[in-house]
Amino acid sequence: MALVVIGGVAAGLSAAARARRIDPQLEIVVLEKGPLISYGACGLPYFVEGRIRDASGLIVYTPEYFRKERNIEVRTQARVVTISHPRREVTLESGDRVRYDRLVISTGARCDTCGLPGLPPSVFTLHTVDDATRLRTFLQEKQPRHGVVIGAGYIGLEAADALRRNGVRVTVLERSANLLLRDDAWWTALVRKQLETHGVELHCGVEAKSIQEDRVGDFPAGVVVVAAGFRPNVELASAAGVEIGRTGAIATDDRMETNLRGVYAAGDCAEVQHLVTGRPTWIPLGTTANKAGRVAGANAAGARERFGGIVGTSIVGLFGVGFATTGLTASQARSEGFSPVAVQIESKNKAGYFQGVKSHVELVCDRATGRLLGGSVVSEDGAAGRINVIATALHAGMRVEQFEQLDLAYSPPFATVWDPLLIAAQQLVRELAK
Amino acid sequence: MALVVIGGVAAGLSAAARARRIDPQLEIVVLEKGPLISYGACGLPYFVEGRIRDASGLIVYTPEYFRKERNIEVRTQARVVTISHPRREVTLESGDRVRYDRLVISTGARCDTCGLPGLPPSVFTLHTVDDATRLRTFLQEKQPRHGVVIGAGYIGLEAADALRRNGVRVTVLERSANLLLRDDAWWTALVRKQLETHGVELHCGVEAKSIQEDRVGDFPAGVVVVAAGFRPNVELASAAGVEIGRTGAIATDDRMETNLRGVYAAGDCAEVQHLVTGRPTWIPLGTTANKAGRVAGANAAGARERFGGIVGTSIVGLFGVGFATTGLTASQARSEGFSPVAVQIESKNKAGYFQGVKSHVELVCDRATGRLLGGSVVSEDGAAGRINVIATALHAGMRVEQFEQLDLAYSPPFATVWDPLLIAAQQLVRELAK
Repeated sequence: MALVVIGGVAAGLSAAARARRIDPQLEIVVLEKGPLISYGACGLPYFVEGRIRDASGLIVYTPEYFRKERNIEVRTQARVVTISHPRREVTLESGDRVRYDRLVISTGARCDTCGLPGLPPSVFTLHTVDDATRLRTFLQEKQPRHGVVIGAGYIGLEAADALRRNGVRVTVLERSANLLLRDDAWWTALVRKQLETHGVELHCGVEAKSIQEDRVGDFPAGVVVVAAGFRPNVELASAAGVEIGRTGAIATDDRMETNLRGVYAAGDCAEVQHLVTGRPTWIPLGTTANKAGRVAGANAAGARERFGGIVGTSIVGLFGVGFATTGLTASQARSEGFSPVAVQIESKNKAGYFQGVKSHVELVCDRATGRLLGGSVVSEDGAAGRINVIATALHAGMRVEQFEQLDLAYSPPFATVWDPLLIAAQQLVRELAK
Repeated sequence: MALVVIGGVAAGLSAAARARRIDPQLEIVVLEKGPLISYGACGLPYFVEGRIRDASGLIVYTPEYFRKERNIEVRTQARVVTISHPRREVTLESGDRVRYDRLVISTGARCDTCGLPGLPPSVFTLHTVDDATRLRTFLQEKQPRHGVVIGAGYIGLEAADALRRNGVRVTVLERSANLLLRDDAWWTALVRKQLETHGVELHCGVEAKSIQEDRVGDFPAGVVVVAAGFRPNVELASAAGVEIGRTGAIATDDRMETNLRGVYAAGDCAEVQHLVTGRPTWIPLGTTANKAGRVAGANAAGARERFGGIVGTSIVGLFGVGFATTGLTASQARSEGFSPVAVQIESKNKAGYFQGVKSHVELVCDRATGRLLGGSVVSEDGAAGRINVIATALHAGMRVEQFEQLDLAYSPPFATVWDPLLIAAQQLVRELAK
């Protein structure tokens, strides 16, 4: 039995490693189109910033490691150009063919301009280690005074932070009104304030029509980072007859199998189930890629596992403040047919004598049932822990009346006796009673 | 209608404030035996340490605040000596009688030696603001070189930390083999190591038979803190016919009502439901006192609310490391009739370039059902957030297979892509499969 995995980053390598654990005999080949595997794409902005000194700090495992320690063959610079499922084989750009019994597709995602020809050399994307290395070198050599970031999603704003810390005056241009992909005025105001406090100029509802050597539209730009129009790489799969879902990513069942028997998909190219909406969603994140990849690999190797789905949890650090979110915003909830009620509070996360700082918490629940639908936490401290509590409650389908009584840890160095989460929940319960 | 609340700290004041919110007309009287109300008892060790400069920093509200802002009468130095439920009145030490329609008993707890006569002036408990003030003054005036703490529960070890930071060489004597009330060898070893690393000598299985002016048994002690033998103050209630539960604390139903109609109990004197065992428990903590007090107050004022119960979550900081725990230990689980499986792991909480530190995580689940029963987290960073995730899972009755797939927040400044919680869960799932 042979397993072929297309893609050697998060989902692909999780799948391969897990398959090996399930079946020590399986022949496993990972085909990666780029020169490197197993890099932490989420670390790229911190390499650009200069916090990670050497690009090797981004690499977790090498092909040699996989070969020797896991008995998994990893080929780099091995771009798959066609999948022939009837023949159970993939064809590489080089013309080589590789046979499979089981296939895991983890072809990732890209942004619109990735690899577009004809752009000035001052224009970068931030998707691969090579992208990050080129941008870092450019910043050090050219020391641009002004920069423009196109797109106010995670990568865009992390790039803005990284540029700013390199002394670049940054302008962010975002087509929509949303920051960090969230259609939530409260959240957007907090993000905007944090960016502006740290000298980042932000323009929403602005499309970058032209990118020149030294400017984007009217904005001076010695350096440009394009982080907009992210989309799943599905063309290869689609051409092979793999079904694409309504989100534009590869449709999968809860075993991460596609419509083609024995062909699995996971990572930034694939849909997963959203536990709050009960519907397929496409939220490309490393955590999901690893988990779903692991399930795809297990099933491809003959186990029977299911992926439990996601609730859409993420966090991004902007100039030292964590912006964390999970589940649905009120307006997302409304378009999913819920009748959402939302509250926003602001509360100290611990006593002043333990350097307590403000926590901003938003909770959203359904008016009819009280079921929690989502939440956000913004704070210099404790945002990850608190969003994870909300995420866990979403996994459990918890109602706000139950959430209000959570037995959370308290001691002065760590929290307040009424945790900001519980204060928000109390207020939401009062709103529900109105 | 008149509501009388006995006790003016956490549970009592939560009850009074909540009752006022429910019924603006209710006559509410709070009777506090001591001179102060509304102090953060959990802050006392930090006052002894010197981090909180002024005792007023421990006080949240004054009687005047309650009188003016909440229309609640608060009497201090008002010790209740008898409750006559047939006559619906309480009698104070002064001889005054106060009538009630509804009564909330929140008489708190004490340690064995609290107020014992005949002890040398170098012996302290740490239960009231007065205790802490006297100890702080003693430390500053006498600058003892050696100290003994009797009892290795929360207050004992926090006191040891506080003394150590005042330059005192501390020996802790604990009767049992348990540290921080936990019968768990893994946990105990971590606590012991942290204490010893910071120069605290620890002796378990040692009873302090005699306390002299300058020594406890063989151990030199210019200062002694007794933090052992904590027990609920139930004598007043018991004499009035209020039923005492098997834990020795006041038995309550899920509305925090006692066996006497219209008489409620909450806080360190009362039992609450443990959600993991489904049985009444006595775990005196400020968080529970506030939540249960709030429910008692609501019901006493005519609302119908229930207290959802606790899972036994707590955290204590020892020399900068958080020791957090929730639910049952394996041996507690065994004596509750479960067949526990436990794993312990050690994993970085984030990347090295973001000052990642080790997190120690223990998870316990039931072999038959996979249901999570408890866990612990020990780390310099993120212990509170992670224990709260486990606590939320316990509230939800989650199985480890579900917990393993939690969609937790990730980004390099905040976490690792496989959170230590998920790594522990994966290992526990593998243990279950054996």
